[in-house]
Amino acid sequence: MDTTIDQAASYFLDLQDAITNGLAAADGTAFHEDRWEYAGKGGGRSRVLSEGQLFEKAGVNFSDVSGEFSDEFAGQMPGHGKAFRATGVSLVLHPWNPYTPTVHANWRCIRRGDYTWFGGGADLTPNYPFKEDCVHFHRVWRDVCHRHPLVAHHDRFKAWCDEYFFIKHRGEARGVGGIFFDWLHSATEAGLGRALAFVRDCGDHFLESYLPIVERRRTLEYGERQRDWQLVRRGRYVEFNLVYDRGTVFGLKTGGRIESILMSLPLNAKWVYNHKPEPGSPEAECLEFLKPRDWHNEPA
Amino acid sequence: MDTTIDQAASYFLDLQDAITNGLAAADGTAFHEDRWEYAGKGGGRSRVLSEGQLFEKAGVNFSDVSGEFSDEFAGQMPGHGKAFRATGVSLVLHPWNPYTPTVHANWRCIRRGDYTWFGGGADLTPNYPFKEDCVHFHRVWRDVCHRHPLVAHHDRFKAWCDEYFFIKHRGEARGVGGIFFDWLHSATEAGLGRALAFVRDCGDHFLESYLPIVERRRTLEYGERQRDWQLVRRGRYVEFNLVYDRGTVFGLKTGGRIESILMSLPLNAKWVYNHKPEPGSPEAECLEFLKPRDWHNEPA
Repeated sequence: MDTTIDQAASYFLDLQDAITNGLAAADGTAFHEDRWEYAGKGGGRSRVLSEGQLFEKAGVNFSDVSGEFSDEFAGQMPGHGKAFRATGVSLVLHPWNPYTPTVHANWRCIRRGDYTWFGGGADLTPNYPFKEDCVHFHRVWRDVCHRHPLVAHHDRFKAWCDEYFFIKHRGEARGVGGIFFDWLHSATEAGLGRALAFVRDCGDHFLESYLPIVERRRTLEYGERQRDWQLVRRGRYVEFNLVYDRGTVFGLKTGGRIESILMSLPLNAKWVYNHKPEPGSPEAECLEFLKPRDWHNEPA
Repeated sequence: MDTTIDQAASYFLDLQDAITNGLAAADGTAFHEDRWEYAGKGGGRSRVLSEGQLFEKAGVNFSDVSGEFSDEFAGQMPGHGKAFRATGVSLVLHPWNPYTPTVHANWRCIRRGDYTWFGGGADLTPNYPFKEDCVHFHRVWRDVCHRHPLVAHHDRFKAWCDEYFFIKHRGEARGVGGIFFDWLHSATEAGLGRALAFVRDCGDHFLESYLPIVERRRTLEYGERQRDWQLVRRGRYVEFNLVYDRGTVFGLKTGGRIESILMSLPLNAKWVYNHKPEPGSPEAECLEFLKPRDWHNEPA
């Protein structure tokens, strides 16, 4: 019989198809695919859509790799021994339209020795604030969590997301959050099965969490001012990913496939010295939205 | 009598004037100045020139700050005690023209307890290779080093530069190097005086190392292809500064003035998935130039 991580890997492979099919249909452009092999065992499928109709850059990665943890990394992980297997899907979507938010999601299953756990999450990064978008996104993830009360704790996973996606040197959140979770483990097959069911429910609802927002915003007209602000916010995204993101920094320092790791970076970003939005402007309001709030409890 | 670090601070203040005057004249645009105070004692003068004739973004910082090292930082530094004073000039210049290289330089004097030392260097980052530019830049720094045989060792400072400005995850140098040095200390006032004389000679020759290159390249015609390659290379610059640069990472993590620390980032940068220059193209030749070479011994 297949182990939980086998089932997870097979689900993640199908999930990448489902998500890229949905996004390609929304964009009207096909993804470019690169298959790659890992130095240990296994490999991945990187899919990227560049300069489409809807997306400036969209990357959706699948990987299933086995190998040995370095000593440094082994100390930060649960379980015993060096042998590991890690499989997952991760994606970052950067649309052209500054009114359409960037989104990131990742779900993964890792086994070390005989210890298996799940992690993941999804979070939204708007440049211009629309309350109904934030409320919609957070409600989808709250509802998914509520369907799995033995596994998922929405309040905790939401707070974890706000805490993780925080640009400390700016004193500013990367976006408006979502959910984040890690180390979802059980000692029984039944318990691991419940964790996998939760992660599948997450993956199955990703498009629902994001595409309705895209459809509302993708045709809004914008000009140089909005594009400029979007590029400044993308600079912040780069700062978070290169300075704080554990996956990115770990990948860069331990020889993962660079182009797949850095697929998350936007096509274009900008650093304007001492850029401060005018008080009362929509750009200043964006910064207000970045302060954590219980979006799922707000009236849309 | 003034201590060595007093003399260094006063020199650095004048040096910022001399360099920004020279650059403003070359550009035809004035620098914007911000004065700021440090949480401990002292402060700085940040000068930035954005979207001028010659420069897309040019930042020249002066600072003279005193305070207490954190425990983490104290362990990485020579000397004893927590009290420190640090003064220096640092600059990064990003020209518009893709044929004109980006340049970085920094000179600093730090005192911890009764232990004083100097550090610094200068390095060049072209997007398109011109051998005579690399040779010119390296010869200026070789000649400066050779005038101070009791302090400076050109071969070692050049190798140190190549080693430091290396983007490990890309297996690629940031640029074509220059010189880099740190912990230039002496137990005597005479020895510290010699170190200061070397650092002054460096500062006094910065414009000579760079402006002749600018004058040769600033009027070369370029198109979208060259601009695109420049933006991709600027993405690499961002990667180095945010992932590896000790000054940047330390500043971000310990609460320096963010806008002054990140003045080094380009106005615009780009991340194109799996971008590989065509073999034999000038862009591919640039990557050949990034392999360390004894430029100062090459015929120009």
